[in-house]
Amino acid sequence: MTIGREVRPIAYPRGEVRASEFRLVEVGVRQPRPGEVLVRNTWTSVDAALRLRLREKAPPGYFPAFPLEEPMDGIMTVGEVLESRAEGFARGDTVWHASGWRDYAVVEAERQALGGVGTLTKLDVSTAPPQAHLGVLGGNGLTAYAGLFHVAGLRDGDVVWVSAAAGAVGSLVAQMAKIRGHRVIGSAGSDEKVRYLLEELGLDAAFNYKRGTLPDLLREAAPDGIDVYFDNVGGDHLEAALGALRRSGRVAICGMISEYAAEEPPNGPGNLMPAVTKGLTMRGFRGSDHTHLLPEMRRQTGAWVREGRLHCRETVVDGLAQAPAALASLLRGDNTGKTLVRIDDVRHRENAGG
Amino acid sequence: MTIGREVRPIAYPRGEVRASEFRLVEVGVRQPRPGEVLVRNTWTSVDAALRLRLREKAPPGYFPAFPLEEPMDGIMTVGEVLESRAEGFARGDTVWHASGWRDYAVVEAERQALGGVGTLTKLDVSTAPPQAHLGVLGGNGLTAYAGLFHVAGLRDGDVVWVSAAAGAVGSLVAQMAKIRGHRVIGSAGSDEKVRYLLEELGLDAAFNYKRGTLPDLLREAAPDGIDVYFDNVGGDHLEAALGALRRSGRVAICGMISEYAAEEPPNGPGNLMPAVTKGLTMRGFRGSDHTHLLPEMRRQTGAWVREGRLHCRETVVDGLAQAPAALASLLRGDNTGKTLVRIDDVRHRENAGG
Repeated sequence: MTIGREVRPIAYPRGEVRASEFRLVEVGVRQPRPGEVLVRNTWTSVDAALRLRLREKAPPGYFPAFPLEEPMDGIMTVGEVLESRAEGFARGDTVWHASGWRDYAVVEAERQALGGVGTLTKLDVSTAPPQAHLGVLGGNGLTAYAGLFHVAGLRDGDVVWVSAAAGAVGSLVAQMAKIRGHRVIGSAGSDEKVRYLLEELGLDAAFNYKRGTLPDLLREAAPDGIDVYFDNVGGDHLEAALGALRRSGRVAICGMISEYAAEEPPNGPGNLMPAVTKGLTMRGFRGSDHTHLLPEMRRQTGAWVREGRLHCRETVVDGLAQAPAALASLLRGDNTGKTLVRIDDVRHRENAGG
Repeated sequence: MTIGREVRPIAYPRGEVRASEFRLVEVGVRQPRPGEVLVRNTWTSVDAALRLRLREKAPPGYFPAFPLEEPMDGIMTVGEVLESRAEGFARGDTVWHASGWRDYAVVEAERQALGGVGTLTKLDVSTAPPQAHLGVLGGNGLTAYAGLFHVAGLRDGDVVWVSAAAGAVGSLVAQMAKIRGHRVIGSAGSDEKVRYLLEELGLDAAFNYKRGTLPDLLREAAPDGIDVYFDNVGGDHLEAALGALRRSGRVAICGMISEYAAEEPPNGPGNLMPAVTKGLTMRGFRGSDHTHLLPEMRRQTGAWVREGRLHCRETVVDGLAQAPAALASLLRGDNTGKTLVRIDDVRHRENAGG
């Protein structure tokens, strides 16, 4: 029997995530039954929002908490089909599915995962490498695309602020708004990321939020205010946005990384009054609420990638065992672009080890 | 020369509004110039949102603060034209305009007031008394109609919670949602108002928010949650709504009476995370952002009034001098329905006295 490995949470973090709160477990990999495929995973995604499920109770309406001592279900991954007993899939196919953070997965082809966005899907890898389907052509691309164009309802002339703009989703949002001709301001948590935003992504302005107070930094970057705020951070960032938004401004609330680890609900923005007086709209969303946009997003985003107009830097960590450390590093703000784990091929190791 | 009276603020309130912060001033009333009409005001509106302008600086994006020791401009009123030098208006016409809290007003016919909703307009008083144009057929009707149908985007089957449901706007929203066949929950600040909501407006459930904790009261009234929250209160009410809203729920933020008097920005809702995880939309608005809906609203609301399906209780205070006390009483939560000042006819007084 093939022996696989999977990462399991063994304790819910208090505050910062630590690698010691996870364990790498060896398990026997069963043969696929009719309707299933056996996949060897090659890349697996590391997402800030996983933090929301690493707690006794996930926020209402979100995907459920990860049970302790069990494999984590609902993490996007790509891999290669080793054996298929499901129609439409064959050995050698590159696929995505939602059984990540393990090296082998037996996946039921018809099973809807992550609101449909994680259902087993054959990928076209002729124009982009497989791992691009975890980022720009996958969930992050969908989140950016749906959030900017549909949730925020981007309009001609809008000035756009993106927080965590060097992150997996933020960097795509910022570039998409630039491609459409908008003035785009990005913020991030280090000078190095700010350089990336200005020099590589070509944003109109960018600032390190640790180098001053947010309302001042934002006023300097956007003296006449903003029309759209794409929120990945929440807290003081959202509050600053409410202050800077012009009449009929819109906030697409994608994430609130500043609040993911909070044990108690934090104080919300104290200046909601402008939401009334300026006629603002704040709208929360998940990419998986917009699965119907997936084909449109892949077509449009794929074209931008091929034309060299949309880039996504990757922070790659080697080895499945490093996934928890990669998540901890992402949540600390150490990573730029998409954080990925390249899964070591356990078969080589077995062969090498004997 | 005719002597008129007007109410002027002489100090900005700290916390609760007191009548002593206003003064009734006698002024000479000038003759209308070409393009102007002279109006004797008969009814003037008392609105909670006036509190937002009784401060050194109004919230960003709102109408400007009322300057001290000057007449208050931008308060809806109805009256009778005494003399017209403007095309389309004749002596005896009933009109509305935005120069309230005084007994005589010289109004420029073309002047856009209150975002267009307060511009001098001739009223049809054949089917409703003049003061109805300050409530159900006027700004309150527009706010209720635009907020419920356009901002909240009411959909079939939505369960609706309206706070301050016995108020001028809330009572209209609650009835409009009932007319459209929705399950409607109303909240208010006294048992007497709750009785009004249940017995006169026929709501499905109602509660006095002072008789428990909001999340519990709301859970009891709407065990399966709500889809739309029409917010007149802000603060803990908005927070409770975010907890109770179901996936894709919507909040129309019309007012935040709980925060109008705040000197410092209060803490906002601590549970904005569900806005993301449940895909909620929160949208602030003013009726005057939706002036284009005025004809549609008057047609629809007028029909409901004629059919006897839409009621608006009035809290009437007699005498212009009582306007500040009426505002204070409204802000304390003492009034039900629309608060109005019936202006004493100064001419009778002069005749009687002189």
